Amino acid sequence: MRTPRISNAIIKRLPIYRRYLRQLKRNNVTKVSSNELSAIIGFTASQIRQDFNTFAQLGQQGYGYEVDKLLNELDDRLGLGHDRVYNTVVIGAGNIGKAISNYTYYYDIGFKIIGIFDANPDLVGTECNEIVVQNISEMDDFARQNSVDVGIICVNRENAQAVADQLVDAGVRGIWNFAPIDLEIPSDVALESVHLSDSLHILSYRMKTLEDEK
Amino acid sequence: MRTPRISNAIIKRLPIYRRYLRQLKRNNVTKVSSNELSAIIGFTASQIRQDFNTFAQLGQQGYGYEVDKLLNELDDRLGLGHDRVYNTVVIGAGNIGKAISNYTYYYDIGFKIIGIFDANPDLVGTECNEIVVQNISEMDDFARQNSVDVGIICVNRENAQAVADQLVDAGVRGIWNFAPIDLEIPSDVALESVHLSDSLHILSYRMKTLEDEK
Repeated sequence: MRTPRISNAIIKRLPIYRRYLRQLKRNNVTKVSSNELSAIIGFTASQIRQDFNTFAQLGQQGYGYEVDKLLNELDDRLGLGHDRVYNTVVIGAGNIGKAISNYTYYYDIGFKIIGIFDANPDLVGTECNEIVVQNISEMDDFARQNSVDVGIICVNRENAQAVADQLVDAGVRGIWNFAPIDLEIPSDVALESVHLSDSLHILSYRMKTLEDEK
Repeated sequence: MRTPRISNAIIKRLPIYRRYLRQLKRNNVTKVSSNELSAIIGFTASQIRQDFNTFAQLGQQGYGYEVDKLLNELDDRLGLGHDRVYNTVVIGAGNIGKAISNYTYYYDIGFKIIGIFDANPDLVGTECNEIVVQNISEMDDFARQNSVDVGIICVNRENAQAVADQLVDAGVRGIWNFAPIDLEIPSDVALESVHLSDSLHILSYRMKTLEDEK
């Protein structure tokens, strides 16, 4: 089934809506208006209504949106929920690899870490959340035998492309990349990169702006 | 001096331009056109020209932009470069805290980690890049004595707001937050949060979309 494509700008807002709606749900809020959401999230109410119409075709709702219904629509669009689990491997068992393994383990967000791999013999054999770090050379066989969906790249810039190629060959459908490099991957594999420096530089931009305004 | 405010959308593109321009510089490219940049970055050439005019008032340049000049303008806008260093402390010496400390240390991006703090006695006294982890109770005095500019929050959701309050009281001008929570801080302190789940959910969105298109 073909889902209509929505713009990159909206896609980036979907997880943000989800985050705030789940917060509301935790606080036992069942209905919320676009004006209330606007006050919490900071997007305009009209933007929110427009976005919701685009992804959920909910129409204008005089008495507010049902939080549960919106969350279900969002989960569906984001490929989450319905007990769906992505089999995930982490490549690189250094600090960032361990931090990300802990993160996905602790927050239980639909990505199940089933294997961790590293090339460093000092790290192979160590444990992270009861998963034993394996040698990277075993990754291919492991991925094929365990139908791995997602690979998380936590190696340095120099090795990241080779690891990405290996993951693609092993049949993953998505790559979450923490190396500061733009990876080249086939168009039928999803890629999302976390560029920590971008975020840090937005912080320094904001600090500079506050400084200039003094 | 008051710098004119530019839109959030452009602000988010500035670090991306910087990243690609530095890559070009590493490859000894000295001039680049908006069309060439468009092919690398993926934004339209007209968007790129518009953005550059907004932040740098460089005007239209028939023979392309000078990479060095653009980088200087970008660094200036982003509050980077010119040997500027932000004294930075990391709160939370778990995996994510250590990963972020390593990252800023390794990539040398203007944020100098001068202190790491944790409340866990098992971590106090351990080392990370030759910095000894101190008890969180010592953070106030340390921050005042060492004119700390930036605090990086790497603690869990439950403790993040208390740590943010402590950092604000200690006089930091910027907070880089990795806890999955929206912090409340005064308007004269800059805040940038990294929501890893947002990025992961954009990945699952893309995987879902590719799946639906099959």
